[in-house]
Amino acid sequence: MHSFPEHLLKGHANFMDGRYAREKDRIRDLASAGQHPPTMIIACCDSRAAPEMIFDAGPGEMFVLRNVANLVPPYQPDGGQHGTSAAIEFAVKALEIENIVIMGHGRCGGIRAALSHTHTPLDDGDFIGKWMSMLGDLPAQLGQNALLTDSERQTAMERISIRNSIRNLRTFPYVAALEKEGRLAVHGAWFDISTGELWVMNGDGDFYRPDL
Amino acid sequence: MHSFPEHLLKGHANFMDGRYAREKDRIRDLASAGQHPPTMIIACCDSRAAPEMIFDAGPGEMFVLRNVANLVPPYQPDGGQHGTSAAIEFAVKALEIENIVIMGHGRCGGIRAALSHTHTPLDDGDFIGKWMSMLGDLPAQLGQNALLTDSERQTAMERISIRNSIRNLRTFPYVAALEKEGRLAVHGAWFDISTGELWVMNGDGDFYRPDL
Amino acid sequence: MHSFPEHLLKGHANFMDGRYAREKDRIRDLASAGQHPPTMIIACCDSRAAPEMIFDAGPGEMFVLRNVANLVPPYQPDGGQHGTSAAIEFAVKALEIENIVIMGHGRCGGIRAALSHTHTPLDDGDFIGKWMSMLGDLPAQLGQNALLTDSERQTAMERISIRNSIRNLRTFPYVAALEKEGRLAVHGAWFDISTGELWVMNGDGDFYRPDL
Amino acid sequence: MHSFPEHLLKGHANFMDGRYAREKDRIRDLASAGQHPPTMIIACCDSRAAPEMIFDAGPGEMFVLRNVANLVPPYQPDGGQHGTSAAIEFAVKALEIENIVIMGHGRCGGIRAALSHTHTPLDDGDFIGKWMSMLGDLPAQLGQNALLTDSERQTAMERISIRNSIRNLRTFPYVAALEKEGRLAVHGAWFDISTGELWVMNGDGDFYRPDL
Repeated sequence: MHSFPEHLLKGHANFMDGRYAREKDRIRDLASAGQHPPTMIIACCDSRAAPEMIFDAGPGEMFVLRNVANLVPPYQPDGGQHGTSAAIEFAVKALEIENIVIMGHGRCGGIRAALSHTHTPLDDGDFIGKWMSMLGDLPAQLGQNALLTDSERQTAMERISIRNSIRNLRTFPYVAALEKEGRLAVHGAWFDISTGELWVMNGDGDFYRPDL
Repeated sequence: MHSFPEHLLKGHANFMDGRYAREKDRIRDLASAGQHPPTMIIACCDSRAAPEMIFDAGPGEMFVLRNVANLVPPYQPDGGQHGTSAAIEFAVKALEIENIVIMGHGRCGGIRAALSHTHTPLDDGDFIGKWMSMLGDLPAQLGQNALLTDSERQTAMERISIRNSIRNLRTFPYVAALEKEGRLAVHGAWFDISTGELWVMNGDGDFYRPDL
Repeated sequence: MHSFPEHLLKGHANFMDGRYAREKDRIRDLASAGQHPPTMIIACCDSRAAPEMIFDAGPGEMFVLRNVANLVPPYQPDGGQHGTSAAIEFAVKALEIENIVIMGHGRCGGIRAALSHTHTPLDDGDFIGKWMSMLGDLPAQLGQNALLTDSERQTAMERISIRNSIRNLRTFPYVAALEKEGRLAVHGAWFDISTGELWVMNGDGDFYRPDL
Repeated sequence: MHSFPEHLLKGHANFMDGRYAREKDRIRDLASAGQHPPTMIIACCDSRAAPEMIFDAGPGEMFVLRNVANLVPPYQPDGGQHGTSAAIEFAVKALEIENIVIMGHGRCGGIRAALSHTHTPLDDGDFIGKWMSMLGDLPAQLGQNALLTDSERQTAMERISIRNSIRNLRTFPYVAALEKEGRLAVHGAWFDISTGELWVMNGDGDFYRPDL
């Protein structure tokens, strides 16, 4: 066991002197009253795509699930231990979240792995391979299209995957029911880690820049 | 499909005018050069416990997995789709992360659910129940102890769970091997969402405040 | 009989030149008028946990009982010679104290002895064993819990013991009656001998830091 | 349960800003290394006679037992739960204390109660009466002497009681043995709460001022 990383200790000191000092009352109220975030974000683990940074969000504002490539599996109660499904269940049924945003991003390593023609497992366990297999034959279907550059194919797959996750999300009975009642909204978003641009998905599954 | 949440659009505009404007060069370099975060954080989805806030971290600084109650399953390649294991595999084998921090926090809803004597599933699917079952009989063992107040039992279980996750993390062969070689360090941490205090785990599994 | 310890003589000279010289009038008034401390502290003998130091208290401010592990027995007039009960009786009935604080502390040797699985009496008389037996089977109950580290178990037992002493204190008829009338308040506190932190007990028996 | 007394919280803040801030390193070392005080003081609960004040002592310097009238019972392993004996056992056998000082003081309420001709119990339980009965017929013997003023009788009884406690202390086999070997010294002292004077006992049981 090494000593705790110095950069984290220093960062925490900055937090205490900065945001915590400024927002102490609100943070304490949040702790005692409990969280009531209006929004759940399902995002990637990538160090360049933190939802709180992208949306300039403070404590209590968003319930955040982060897994590799921001995937959502279909509703399968008899399947394995689905950490993602557990977070969705908690957000919708316990926290009564009003919005779920599935947010992908550019240059995603998980999507790149899924697209690689000759998948070389990182390890015998190959958890990445198994996890990305949730995309089924979508990468293979896209990969056959020789008209796209690698970069275009990558972005395309990132967005295809968001649409796929939204489909899966709607297989959760309570998600579908609440969305029908107008009490829960499901959104797709894609973040460009280079330009900072945010693209959001419309009803047709297309992505556009809402600030333009 | 509702229109994209206004608070997110406004937050993104703040990001563009603020951090992005100030750190544009660095953010673009990160996009083109790829991420090389030194640290992986395994944290909870709770809206009050964002690692980037707690450690005042900017883009590129930490690879962040967030699931309910920051659990790590044991190494089980033949088990279900382990999103958590995929993230660990990616962080260690592809990104060559130097530190993994499992960070729990106070008043964790997942831990509270695990401790409740009469678990009432939020839904027939009961993903929360299945997910938290990763703790095995630890909650029951602790729950039998009537000497602790509810609050003390909650904190104790949050820390016991961190130790359990660290044990599980070390069943990943490459984690154990790299740790032995001194190339990877595994840490435990616990964040007090009310006081802002950070507690870190020492070699005995005890938690202490490094800033004191 | 050795000569009186030099360090004590020197310390007393410091007291005379310092506090006594400065507060002579108040100290003399206190001697002639009698003591009317508002608060009784029941603390441990430990050399690192003097109540006057912790609370920066001067002469006349606190009536202080100190025994091993700051224990309070239940009200048992027919039992043995209870020095602790005599002090409580004097404080409440003669001095009309308004507050009683039972103050435990970290790394308490008495609590450690009570928790040790294989109690080895320090002496045939085993006064420590008899004295700590006031905790009944609480240490055994807690000791069976293998989930806590030694350090966590120690802190937990220190706080369980404070709650137990408060329960015992309330078996004194006049304590219960005066508390009901709002003329006497009973408090629990725990002092961290390393960080200097003071934790106080709330109505649920939980300990928190009032300065945060 | 009232809120924690304000004067104690304020005092603790003073301690943190003052002594703790100045002696942080030493205090922390004491916490981790354990206490090794050279001296045990057996003193009274009186708010005007705190040993740490009288001897200007800091953390780690003295192991302090405080009961009503600083009494020591004889060695009686088959008697009741003797908190005082437990503290002596711990100090001598576990901490290997080098000095034990029994320190009485002027205008002691417990001694005054023992001397009153017509003892009126403060409460049916009469713990004070039972506790002070440890002095046996000494108060009665002294009380028959009409030549002393009340004040003189009071001071005399305070010193007689110290000598009595020293006799009782020497019935503890290990105290007697270690004292004989020159490894433990037993002392008597008396503090004048008005003038601040310290009187110490010589080998004949007489009290004198060492600073004169």
